[in-house]
Amino acid sequence: MQVTELIRKKRDGGELEHAEIKFLIDEYTRDSVPDYQMSAWLMAVLLRGMIRAELAALTESMLHSGQVLDFANLPAPRVDKHSTGGVGDKTSLVVAPVAAAGGLYVPMISGRGLGHTGGTLDKLESIAGFNVNLSTAEFGRVLGQCGAAMIGQTADIAPADKKLYALRDVTGTVESPYLICASIMSKKLAEGIDALVLDVKTGSGAFMKKEEDAVFLAELMVETGQRLGKKVVALITDMNQPLGHAVGNALEVAECIDVLNGKGPDDLRELCLVLSAWMFLLGNRVINLEEGRKLAEEMIHRGKAKAKFREMIALQGGESRVVDHPDLLPRARHTVDVSTPCSGYVAGIMCEQIGTASLLLGGGRLRKEDQVDPAVGVVVHKKLGDEVRAGDALCTVHYNAEERLEIATSLILQSYSIEPQPPESDRKIVHQVIGDSKP
Amino acid sequence: MQVTELIRKKRDGGELEHAEIKFLIDEYTRDSVPDYQMSAWLMAVLLRGMIRAELAALTESMLHSGQVLDFANLPAPRVDKHSTGGVGDKTSLVVAPVAAAGGLYVPMISGRGLGHTGGTLDKLESIAGFNVNLSTAEFGRVLGQCGAAMIGQTADIAPADKKLYALRDVTGTVESPYLICASIMSKKLAEGIDALVLDVKTGSGAFMKKEEDAVFLAELMVETGQRLGKKVVALITDMNQPLGHAVGNALEVAECIDVLNGKGPDDLRELCLVLSAWMFLLGNRVINLEEGRKLAEEMIHRGKAKAKFREMIALQGGESRVVDHPDLLPRARHTVDVSTPCSGYVAGIMCEQIGTASLLLGGGRLRKEDQVDPAVGVVVHKKLGDEVRAGDALCTVHYNAEERLEIATSLILQSYSIEPQPPESDRKIVHQVIGDSKP
Repeated sequence: MQVTELIRKKRDGGELEHAEIKFLIDEYTRDSVPDYQMSAWLMAVLLRGMIRAELAALTESMLHSGQVLDFANLPAPRVDKHSTGGVGDKTSLVVAPVAAAGGLYVPMISGRGLGHTGGTLDKLESIAGFNVNLSTAEFGRVLGQCGAAMIGQTADIAPADKKLYALRDVTGTVESPYLICASIMSKKLAEGIDALVLDVKTGSGAFMKKEEDAVFLAELMVETGQRLGKKVVALITDMNQPLGHAVGNALEVAECIDVLNGKGPDDLRELCLVLSAWMFLLGNRVINLEEGRKLAEEMIHRGKAKAKFREMIALQGGESRVVDHPDLLPRARHTVDVSTPCSGYVAGIMCEQIGTASLLLGGGRLRKEDQVDPAVGVVVHKKLGDEVRAGDALCTVHYNAEERLEIATSLILQSYSIEPQPPESDRKIVHQVIGDSKP
Repeated sequence: MQVTELIRKKRDGGELEHAEIKFLIDEYTRDSVPDYQMSAWLMAVLLRGMIRAELAALTESMLHSGQVLDFANLPAPRVDKHSTGGVGDKTSLVVAPVAAAGGLYVPMISGRGLGHTGGTLDKLESIAGFNVNLSTAEFGRVLGQCGAAMIGQTADIAPADKKLYALRDVTGTVESPYLICASIMSKKLAEGIDALVLDVKTGSGAFMKKEEDAVFLAELMVETGQRLGKKVVALITDMNQPLGHAVGNALEVAECIDVLNGKGPDDLRELCLVLSAWMFLLGNRVINLEEGRKLAEEMIHRGKAKAKFREMIALQGGESRVVDHPDLLPRARHTVDVSTPCSGYVAGIMCEQIGTASLLLGGGRLRKEDQVDPAVGVVVHKKLGDEVRAGDALCTVHYNAEERLEIATSLILQSYSIEPQPPESDRKIVHQVIGDSKP
């Protein structure tokens, strides 16, 4: 097979066969296709798109470029949840224990924060001793024992995606929904899951600012997963403001513990319950969403989810006492309130800027090699539609480095728009569900 | 300047500034931009196109990536002719001596054959001793002395084009008219010329099969040349059958000598006269095309063009006696006629297949490193519209290697279509002229 011919075919809007895509990915993974050919092909894909069969072939080829985990020996379905990323987006730390408590297995392989969005691994590592770098065998052991395990991507999982992602990053080919879909789904399906609930964020703090883009990506992911034999559903959820109040690693862990205690912010709790309900439904633990939601509520109410979280932390080497004593989590040395000079109603929040403020305080990474400060971040008090008076604290900044305070404060202040009249739009956390027919 | 941003800008259909394109080409030439970024940008250019100002900036940046020759000291205008390539396309060997005889300077830098089309350098090298690898200083000396010099591209001329061409060849980005235009024009303008006559071929033996594609490329090249301060005109000429009768290096040289002797095939002589007339017009030797044509005819009739050819061959180390004794040119050991089994009229010739037949006989290259056999080729006796009878020879094959004869013969036979009625279309060699207003 001639690589140049495959590039030309896609360039001219043609459709590649399964065997052609597999050839391309296999040869690229083993360094037989050079980066300069792959980047031309990626640009052609970005500009020409793919039909669904091509996308499934690409995803499957990337999935099988490395190890595909197999937990078929476990006595209940394996179900995961994946989010496209947002600000204060911390549901994994709640839904994994809830789902495990309700009888599912959750083999979750997550990422780190990059840019304005946080990452599950960074949040977990704010718990002293928590080890996200388990071997595959250890991962399986923790999963089998407690029902949930949370690690980072290993070198063996979807190596084609690692190479491709690094190349896309420097060749202007990140933004293709087809390439995003294949990247996400190849990694998730390598977890050996039966079903997947996708949380596709849309709004000012999301990667997909426009809802139609989020829906398009969601449809691609749902269909691709189904073509590869998995049950997949996608929820389009709101990211026009931070989820919950806490933005920053340890702050977010503490907020998740609040939710596991039956408290916490309404929007976060609601989203966790909906996501868990879908996990139970796809995992055949319940016969409808209402039952799923009830089961999730029950797992929280009876302390079973919290116990699972404690157990998982302990099995992964972490300080599990934080679950009962969140004050053991890292704390920033200083806090300061950011107050508004206006009276009125919160009409808009440039959510990405709140994420960037936390990032600049040290809570995230500008470059992959940066160290994260687990203690710093932003606690958001005023959210969309809230009434404020001049002098009210919009947020509280938790910081360690004085020199980064000013820019973070300034970003937060600028991100709020305060209007004299309350905004009209409703604040539904789940905008729509894609793939809502049991496959 | 961020290379990724420049890729994204073109990807999204934006227009790059002159400085941005210059940065990209400069950094690529000095290996600071890697191939994988350039190939993504090239694919974006292929699929998104360029506006004329971008194309001029690209051409100018490639032109100035290396040495730009300067013959401003010579006492008459420097004018060149360039063809996009075809089968039996040998006019350079006629028009350069004609133009030089008429008082112009022709600093012609040419290429080798690749694929089904021939190359001027290969034709010249069928003359024993002819050296196409002159240094820049030797090139200038021959040019100044005889008015015409013909060499291959040196390492110093448009090095950006060399790198880009090699990359395009393996990344499916050869076919963009914008990239073709920049490649051709950057090399031609590096010759230090004042004016350029382009011969853009269209038809079954040309790179551009469709006339509209040829016209589009021609318009790009004319406008780009004019933006860079040169007089440029483009002739769209017919390549639905081989030009003249001879296809193959030494065979074509002999046919050019025929034309310089005032003989030779009508279509070839006509095209040479028209091209020469345009060169004289753009070079201010005449006030209109009719005068230009008369001057060209006179240079041939009085033997001045033939004398120039003889002189140039001698100055470049070649056996100049071939001009008067074409039998000194290499000759194949064997010839065989390819006869038609049908009676009727030649209604079509798949011209590219005739070129491929010559290539397979050893007259061209499948790979860059292949050696060319100067003696072999095809002499075409029957052309479009000709009446034939069963048993008539369509072509004569000149060959040295028996084992390649069968496939060549078969290609030639298949390339002809013989119909009972004569075809209707007229056989004008020049279809149209682009840029026909003196700039």
